[in-house]
Amino acid sequence: MEFTVGQIAQVVGGTVEGDAAATVSSLAKIEEAGPGALAFLANAKYEQFLYTTAATAVIISPELPLRQSVAAALIRVADPYSAFTKLLEFYQQATRFSRRGVEEPSFIGASSTIGGGHYRGAFSYVGEGCVLGENVLIFPHAYIGDRVHIGDNTIIHAGAKIYADTAIGKRCVIKAGAVVGSDGFGFAPQTDGSYKAIPQIGQVILEDDVSIGANATVDCATMGSTLIRQGVKIDNLVQIAHNVEIGRHTVIAAQTGVSGSTKVGDYCVLAGQVGLVGHISLANRTTITAQSGVQKSTKTEGQILQGYPAIGLKENQRATAVYRRLPELERRLIALEKSQPAPEKG
Amino acid sequence: MEFTVGQIAQVVGGTVEGDAAATVSSLAKIEEAGPGALAFLANAKYEQFLYTTAATAVIISPELPLRQSVAAALIRVADPYSAFTKLLEFYQQATRFSRRGVEEPSFIGASSTIGGGHYRGAFSYVGEGCVLGENVLIFPHAYIGDRVHIGDNTIIHAGAKIYADTAIGKRCVIKAGAVVGSDGFGFAPQTDGSYKAIPQIGQVILEDDVSIGANATVDCATMGSTLIRQGVKIDNLVQIAHNVEIGRHTVIAAQTGVSGSTKVGDYCVLAGQVGLVGHISLANRTTITAQSGVQKSTKTEGQILQGYPAIGLKENQRATAVYRRLPELERRLIALEKSQPAPEKG
Amino acid sequence: MEFTVGQIAQVVGGTVEGDAAATVSSLAKIEEAGPGALAFLANAKYEQFLYTTAATAVIISPELPLRQSVAAALIRVADPYSAFTKLLEFYQQATRFSRRGVEEPSFIGASSTIGGGHYRGAFSYVGEGCVLGENVLIFPHAYIGDRVHIGDNTIIHAGAKIYADTAIGKRCVIKAGAVVGSDGFGFAPQTDGSYKAIPQIGQVILEDDVSIGANATVDCATMGSTLIRQGVKIDNLVQIAHNVEIGRHTVIAAQTGVSGSTKVGDYCVLAGQVGLVGHISLANRTTITAQSGVQKSTKTEGQILQGYPAIGLKENQRATAVYRRLPELERRLIALEKSQPAPEKG
Repeated sequence: MEFTVGQIAQVVGGTVEGDAAATVSSLAKIEEAGPGALAFLANAKYEQFLYTTAATAVIISPELPLRQSVAAALIRVADPYSAFTKLLEFYQQATRFSRRGVEEPSFIGASSTIGGGHYRGAFSYVGEGCVLGENVLIFPHAYIGDRVHIGDNTIIHAGAKIYADTAIGKRCVIKAGAVVGSDGFGFAPQTDGSYKAIPQIGQVILEDDVSIGANATVDCATMGSTLIRQGVKIDNLVQIAHNVEIGRHTVIAAQTGVSGSTKVGDYCVLAGQVGLVGHISLANRTTITAQSGVQKSTKTEGQILQGYPAIGLKENQRATAVYRRLPELERRLIALEKSQPAPEKG
Repeated sequence: MEFTVGQIAQVVGGTVEGDAAATVSSLAKIEEAGPGALAFLANAKYEQFLYTTAATAVIISPELPLRQSVAAALIRVADPYSAFTKLLEFYQQATRFSRRGVEEPSFIGASSTIGGGHYRGAFSYVGEGCVLGENVLIFPHAYIGDRVHIGDNTIIHAGAKIYADTAIGKRCVIKAGAVVGSDGFGFAPQTDGSYKAIPQIGQVILEDDVSIGANATVDCATMGSTLIRQGVKIDNLVQIAHNVEIGRHTVIAAQTGVSGSTKVGDYCVLAGQVGLVGHISLANRTTITAQSGVQKSTKTEGQILQGYPAIGLKENQRATAVYRRLPELERRLIALEKSQPAPEKG
Repeated sequence: MEFTVGQIAQVVGGTVEGDAAATVSSLAKIEEAGPGALAFLANAKYEQFLYTTAATAVIISPELPLRQSVAAALIRVADPYSAFTKLLEFYQQATRFSRRGVEEPSFIGASSTIGGGHYRGAFSYVGEGCVLGENVLIFPHAYIGDRVHIGDNTIIHAGAKIYADTAIGKRCVIKAGAVVGSDGFGFAPQTDGSYKAIPQIGQVILEDDVSIGANATVDCATMGSTLIRQGVKIDNLVQIAHNVEIGRHTVIAAQTGVSGSTKVGDYCVLAGQVGLVGHISLANRTTITAQSGVQKSTKTEGQILQGYPAIGLKENQRATAVYRRLPELERRLIALEKSQPAPEKG
């Protein structure tokens, strides 16, 4: 896809300074851009790159005065960041989400329905009794079990598996290889020390605007629902166990695990490789730093916790600072002990 | 699926108190149940919910005296928990494991055989020389390589990948996206600092009643076998490296990793996000708490280990308790040092 | 596959002592080998097994004197380890990588090309505009998006997903279920506390000889490239975030996570379950021990780091040793405090 600088300016409603006939075919950061690329400058911190960039064109604000000559064509527009983001979305849509219709072979149960504007890729599978909305994109090798509901404009990426009875909202993104609604890890110990699987008959509910990362796993509830509320963003390789509830607009980074029946509040941030034990609840706006392990419920909102077991960030950082000096502290303690008079009384 | 309370009572061998003609269509916990749901009460702790539940029917024991009026229909049966579990199994079977026969397109090598009562979903793949037992369920997108043996009543879920020469026992469950028998991570360092892959030609053996979690990975042995013994339950996103052996009825929670050639005993419990280094062995009935890292073999059975490196649970908990007070301890040490007379002798 | 000892000797250029007509059908370690197996002896440490092994044949060096009688046939060859490795490669090739041609149904976009000697398994998917080299093996259920380039002799295993615009070098191995080029985890916080996905339009570049583990995830760059340099070996369930760069011949063990825009040097070793925060860089030849967390850039080459936050290995080990004795140290500190004269001055 190649566009002239003039065409781009029209799309974003800007004015051109320089060669409006120059053509661009990619989008790049101003500090990395090469010939044929379109970049943007929104942050004054990066202004220096404007005078050295190899980009063919740069989107900048109308007010920015030029302190040196600029080789690139300029597109002046009121909000360069927003204009550029729009182009990114357009580019992503055109290059990665443009397929519509049905590629064969594909499979859909006779009792399932799907709205207009959809894509069902080759080798995609949709079971029976599914209700899929408008503009739903189902990539190749995606598996959608029976009685799954999917809202409008949701994207199911390649090889994602959505198990029976899952309900997915609008504008959700389920990335490649994610498994949603697989059986929870529930086993009843037997008297001989073996385990018997407890049938898992519940479901997963993903509300609107939820994103599930590549190869992440969200187990169905034993009974009832594992519930991922509106706007939650879950990164790759995250594990969400059965009967968990994640509050609205919470963000969970890669490789974190949330154990069964735990409830995470709204607007929380769980960094990477965090672990939460089961049957606890985290207050709203809690942040857990990377690799920490949370063992207890919290009630105060807005805390930042760290460590294993996780305690207040500052408290943990102070303890960690001393930790490095432990060998020295021990030596000083021993020195003190030796300097004491021998206990001769008695 | 809708049943009358009377029909349910017949199935579980119970007697009805109340409206035997009322209909139920779902199973739920007594504290969460709504109209149309069937619940059960086995634990006296939950008796209060009997008088407030919105469930249409509740399974209870014959002896339980009613202290208040109950709106729900009651089904009296000797062991309410067992009766309910049977219904759960029936429900799960009917809603999630009822498919039989072959959906097309699917692929099976001409030299492979499969027993009666099977399901081969659309886009499932079975290679050459496989021997698959009775009632084996193979969900869509499952991949089964050459010369794989699978015992009766085993379920291979959507998109699971079973590599060549794997042997799987009876009643196993391989969940969605799990990879069993992929090449181990074996590389020979070269003199120039690069690495050369060591061909991995071994296999994986899963004995009977093994469960492998969604997106978990179990690598094949370099030579010989990676061995998962009877009744082992492995959760989602667990990594089992090449030549590992996991003893009978051991349970491994999500995101734990077991490094190459390590041997875990029988009846062990590895909690979530645990790591075991390679070439060690854990005694039977060892428990490792969440996020711990084990660096050494253990010989004493029944230990509970925690921390990194993992030590006895109590010992680690005591150290952790002091850890939080390290800054205070350091201050007290400094105060003691300052209170000493200056060392003037000498 | 069955071969006589004489045939094997011809293949590896060795001479036979004993029964050249005996047949072998498997390869095994000398200490584990049974009848019908071929083993090797390269390390004097294992010589004892030569006299007790049940192997049908053993490859040994020409010089090795026999101190006892040996039941197995012997194949004498200059470099037994190399000879055995060649047989392993041959065996692996013959049993696991022998398929060529196209299994149906499979899918390939009309504008894509693929070189000779390839395998495209049933249910494999190749999008539009792809350029695939010679001897590329694409296993069943593999997904290859649009405009992907793949070099000669690369293997894409079952169910691996390669997203649009990814460039893969020669002799790479992408294991089962790996996801390469999925959208990075980039979200712009909105004023109401919700998040908006930042379109990810970049790509992933894997140079030659890269190995990506089963169910590992490598995200595409927001713009530009996530770059995995030559010879990098990545284990199962590893997470590589957007815009990361991994230097040549670096090895990353299972379940490790590298956060966005971080740069790892050449010849580094990241052990299992390690975490690296975003936007840092590690010097060449850095080793990070298992479960450690790195929060800061390093500039000195060749360091070994451990702990959370990771510090020098020795320093951390010394602190860890004292950590276990913390309760005792605290008691001794208290004893010292009690032994002091009451502060009565003033």
